[in-house]
Amino acid sequence: MFHPKQVFIAVIGTGGVGRTFLSQLHFLGSKLCQDASSPIYLSTIVLSTSKKFISSTDYHPIHLDSWEKDLAASTTTPPSFSDLAEYLSKAPNKVVLVDNTSNETLAEAYPLFLKKGINIVTPNKKAFSGSYELWQNIFGAAANGSGIGGYVFHESSVGAGLPVISTLKELVETGDEVYRIEGVFSGTMSFLFNSFMPVGGGGSSFSAEVKKAKELGYTEPDPRDDLNGQDVARKLTILARLVGLPVESSTSFPVQSLIPSELEGCKSGDEFLQRLGEFDGKMEELKKGAASEGKVVRFVGSVDVAKNKVKVGLENFDPSHPIAALKGSDNIISFYTKRYGDNPLIIQGAGAGGEVTAMGVTADLIKVLRLLR
Amino acid sequence: MFHPKQVFIAVIGTGGVGRTFLSQLHFLGSKLCQDASSPIYLSTIVLSTSKKFISSTDYHPIHLDSWEKDLAASTTTPPSFSDLAEYLSKAPNKVVLVDNTSNETLAEAYPLFLKKGINIVTPNKKAFSGSYELWQNIFGAAANGSGIGGYVFHESSVGAGLPVISTLKELVETGDEVYRIEGVFSGTMSFLFNSFMPVGGGGSSFSAEVKKAKELGYTEPDPRDDLNGQDVARKLTILARLVGLPVESSTSFPVQSLIPSELEGCKSGDEFLQRLGEFDGKMEELKKGAASEGKVVRFVGSVDVAKNKVKVGLENFDPSHPIAALKGSDNIISFYTKRYGDNPLIIQGAGAGGEVTAMGVTADLIKVLRLLR
Repeated sequence: MFHPKQVFIAVIGTGGVGRTFLSQLHFLGSKLCQDASSPIYLSTIVLSTSKKFISSTDYHPIHLDSWEKDLAASTTTPPSFSDLAEYLSKAPNKVVLVDNTSNETLAEAYPLFLKKGINIVTPNKKAFSGSYELWQNIFGAAANGSGIGGYVFHESSVGAGLPVISTLKELVETGDEVYRIEGVFSGTMSFLFNSFMPVGGGGSSFSAEVKKAKELGYTEPDPRDDLNGQDVARKLTILARLVGLPVESSTSFPVQSLIPSELEGCKSGDEFLQRLGEFDGKMEELKKGAASEGKVVRFVGSVDVAKNKVKVGLENFDPSHPIAALKGSDNIISFYTKRYGDNPLIIQGAGAGGEVTAMGVTADLIKVLRLLR
Repeated sequence: MFHPKQVFIAVIGTGGVGRTFLSQLHFLGSKLCQDASSPIYLSTIVLSTSKKFISSTDYHPIHLDSWEKDLAASTTTPPSFSDLAEYLSKAPNKVVLVDNTSNETLAEAYPLFLKKGINIVTPNKKAFSGSYELWQNIFGAAANGSGIGGYVFHESSVGAGLPVISTLKELVETGDEVYRIEGVFSGTMSFLFNSFMPVGGGGSSFSAEVKKAKELGYTEPDPRDDLNGQDVARKLTILARLVGLPVESSTSFPVQSLIPSELEGCKSGDEFLQRLGEFDGKMEELKKGAASEGKVVRFVGSVDVAKNKVKVGLENFDPSHPIAALKGSDNIISFYTKRYGDNPLIIQGAGAGGEVTAMGVTADLIKVLRLLR
């Protein structure tokens, strides 16, 4: 027997975000079932990594307090995504798929899940910054697009738990005119440039800052994955599409890579890091150029809506500009709109990290649960 | 015959916010009914000021393109709020009451409307910063509280259209621990102190700045209504309650008034403004005190959650602090939480004005409509 207010949850991915999400899910589940006015019962029925898979017998819940041990002990490999969609669509009540991976194949299967009425919440940027066709298929199927399938929410795909996507959607839906979006969208790039050229002077060589950032865990295992600008380009693609620009992909507009062309052939991240110092002079020149105008250099992304232009790369900012004044690895996103006039609506704070990314996913899950009531 | 996807709207208040809201409602209504996947038909059935009232015959819609003329021509005075609730509860489908007033009596009637299943969206601070008993009665009745009545949303009651309340709710609901909320919550106070003591020096006497602010339309008609700090105190009351503190009322914690005690007896705003210059020396001292520490003075509000302390008044800030760097009449709200660590989640932008306040109301209406689907 299933309770009519039972919602089934399938979680894929147990990395940094996935693990933290599972503990937030545990917290949320026990809170929701105690809601005197209208309890909701969350039952996790699938938990999967790329290698291991556990699912419940007859859609009964997996125990969230022993998931790690249970998953490690599993000898089952994950089914294909279409088999998974089939299994979930037969659940005796509504289902939410939580994709805590950055898996492109899973992203491409979203329309399939949505069409079967399965809801999706995810920080996976791939689904929303891949081909425009995939974007159209997702929102053509989703109930919060033009379809009649499941709902899809992806707040954490830009700025982690910061309310970036929800705010942009509200501006658009209530009829404001968004002129321009500008900001620092990468915690790594924020940290790198806030250290390389802090307001007021200081900072060591660029290659030394990259090494420091890597040691402190601010970069991807291979720092080239940050320095190529693609992470930022994906986020900009998502925002531009939300505001109505039919951006073909995250590679269809200018993205400045900080990987010197001479180092593009490096076989490993380590080789790259070893040789990066050869190009410190070039970065030092950029720094001097900015300083000669009384400015600092930052790695930013922007969407110019009227001109239909998206761009990612280095730009110089006055020290009094909020982008220059950013601290640590914070993100900042400014929305310039008709209603907000000269002073943009600004959202600022940590835009990466397991806790805040998982929080965005959990908040999306809560949104879906409300809509499913 | 009514369409099952018809939602009835009653709008009270046609001042700056109300008027702008009506045009946003017009825009939203025509967009929603064209939604191919699931059209919603909005029908405005009541439009009221404190003096005039129009309602539709048999719940057929009022024409939004001629509301101003129609309302002016009306000879009907508004019914009592309990009669209005009765009328709305008999509508053949769901109803949203949009309260664009700052009417305290209407605020006190919210539980009555909610219990009858009528949904409410509003920027009216009175309902949420009045007695704690009223707060409890509202959320004890509301579907998004612990009740089974209508939904109530009030994003615009703090920071106008800025996503302040929704963000705070998400932090709490997803299990983050909010330590402290701090910010500039009044556009008037922001403008006044950004002009009185800009970073880098300058600014004229305090009384001159108040007069300038009034001329530019940044203050209430009687500037004492801004300077007494009560507007900020009401907003802090709302945020403190959302984070779980049972604040008794907006007068139950320390609020620094900028009205000199000697001028409390002034009969009019004009008399007050004429005499305010007598106290410029005192404000100049505060300015010098801050300057001697290398800081600037600002009018801020804060909630210290652990210490259960709410406070409103003047404080000094380092020029590099985001509160010091604020421009124009912008608001800034910083959430210090466990997940966000040392660098708070910050939201910044215009926190007053008809357009952005109405936008918050319209966004809330969209949220309710989604939940009513």
